[in-house]
Amino acid sequence: MRIGFVGLGLMGSPMAMHLVRAGLDVAVYNRTALRAEPHREAGAVVCKSLGELGGLCDKIFICVSDTPDVESVIFDPGGLADSLAEGALIVDHSTISPSASRGFAHRLAGLGVGFVDAPVSGGTKGAHEGKLTVMMGGSERDVASARPIVSIYAAKVSHIGPVGSGQLMKCCNQLVAGLHVLALAEGFRFAGRLGLDQATAHEVIGSGAAGSFIWKHWGAQLLEGNLNPGFKISLHRKDLHLVLEECQKSGLDLPGLKLLIELYDRAVEEGLGELGDQALGRVFKDQQLRL
Amino acid sequence: MRIGFVGLGLMGSPMAMHLVRAGLDVAVYNRTALRAEPHREAGAVVCKSLGELGGLCDKIFICVSDTPDVESVIFDPGGLADSLAEGALIVDHSTISPSASRGFAHRLAGLGVGFVDAPVSGGTKGAHEGKLTVMMGGSERDVASARPIVSIYAAKVSHIGPVGSGQLMKCCNQLVAGLHVLALAEGFRFAGRLGLDQATAHEVIGSGAAGSFIWKHWGAQLLEGNLNPGFKISLHRKDLHLVLEECQKSGLDLPGLKLLIELYDRAVEEGLGELGDQALGRVFKDQQLRL
Repeated sequence: MRIGFVGLGLMGSPMAMHLVRAGLDVAVYNRTALRAEPHREAGAVVCKSLGELGGLCDKIFICVSDTPDVESVIFDPGGLADSLAEGALIVDHSTISPSASRGFAHRLAGLGVGFVDAPVSGGTKGAHEGKLTVMMGGSERDVASARPIVSIYAAKVSHIGPVGSGQLMKCCNQLVAGLHVLALAEGFRFAGRLGLDQATAHEVIGSGAAGSFIWKHWGAQLLEGNLNPGFKISLHRKDLHLVLEECQKSGLDLPGLKLLIELYDRAVEEGLGELGDQALGRVFKDQQLRL
Repeated sequence: MRIGFVGLGLMGSPMAMHLVRAGLDVAVYNRTALRAEPHREAGAVVCKSLGELGGLCDKIFICVSDTPDVESVIFDPGGLADSLAEGALIVDHSTISPSASRGFAHRLAGLGVGFVDAPVSGGTKGAHEGKLTVMMGGSERDVASARPIVSIYAAKVSHIGPVGSGQLMKCCNQLVAGLHVLALAEGFRFAGRLGLDQATAHEVIGSGAAGSFIWKHWGAQLLEGNLNPGFKISLHRKDLHLVLEECQKSGLDLPGLKLLIELYDRAVEEGLGELGDQALGRVFKDQQLRL
């Protein structure tokens, strides 16, 4: 059994490296080949094409950015669908459309190839430490087959339900996280404008019933003036649009989500997309504020 | 030195009881005298009027509901301002208007009476366990004088700044908490409508970067179908209007706050005010949901 890994970005690179270091027989592919050098040095086979990787492997893990990227990796001419043998399994760690994931699984089933959607949370920190949370959607058999490998870089692996449900759970996660980012942005803004010391506000509020992971960790980054991305505004914006799509299909109206979409869209328009989520408050115009 | 305590409601009653049990010389007053019986049995002097209490005590702690209640306790004919001796100190644990607090302090200063605003967080659970968080605004001297007594029922006592700043910090806290309640409401609603198991969503999402105190604790209550108030929707609504007042005075526009005001107003109009904050999602119309 050889493991394939496609997509050696900020998340995929450390994830794939965990597999290589665990002693598995790993082949990797990345559009920009240079990013595969550390993996080659650690013992991975570096493939020149997706077709080559598909011919070598029977379990392929994908970690790219968005729905069209996953579709392209699998279904473009010369992609995985052309090269994988019957009985192979694709595990997709990207955060993409739940509905599209179901479509991909359906098309792959016709080729005898299994599919598990397995979006992750925990950011680059979780990827490096091998402590990601992974939300898997797929059949019992496929999830059981993916689990021991995924567990190498995950602290928590949950089988949510059928294909697509991993992505739905990730949607829910990104919605909740987005509202927590809004709470951080508005809390700091209120404190700054009303003359409260933001460090005191961060400490006092974070220690009680209004505390959250995001308030604590991203608030600390804000106080240090660190706007570097643990998670980029542009990616959270993409995810929130996935949530919105699912809501629209279900006739579900979530006013908080609507507000988030407005703010994240504006943030990206104003050039804040490459900053970390903790910088969302910059969409507010008060430039005198510490935010 | 005798300690006075005014307002033996859900919060004030256990707070006053902690002082009595600590062996302090405590006098209490409550509009409904019956609620003072447990304190009498524990050794407190029960006063028949605010004038009587004001004549007996030099440090008075107030815990009532809203700005007009505090104003009435202090400044109505026969209230504390009429009976307190020069050099006395009032510590107000109610959550009320920061600006009004500054006004009260100013009027009391003319009588030689000190004032500290000292709103609390931690709910009835924190009050019973003596583990409240207290945010104090006032002069160094007044705060130092209040601190040893407040510490009897608090796990954390912070001196935020001058009079009014305790209330401002509480405003900030209630804003952040409100957005976390919205995250809980929308997260559960999304999960329920999109066919995810809400208990799984609660567990998976709560263990990662989207976790919060409110998601964890109030989400668990939601899953049990427990909508009893640790903190009432109607009180959170009142607090959010205090936040809005302060924002309007500062020309500060917070879109998340605006949305919260809309939802909490609607919740109270629809008769949800006496339920706990965890029931906010009930304002959404999908009655088939578990929310």
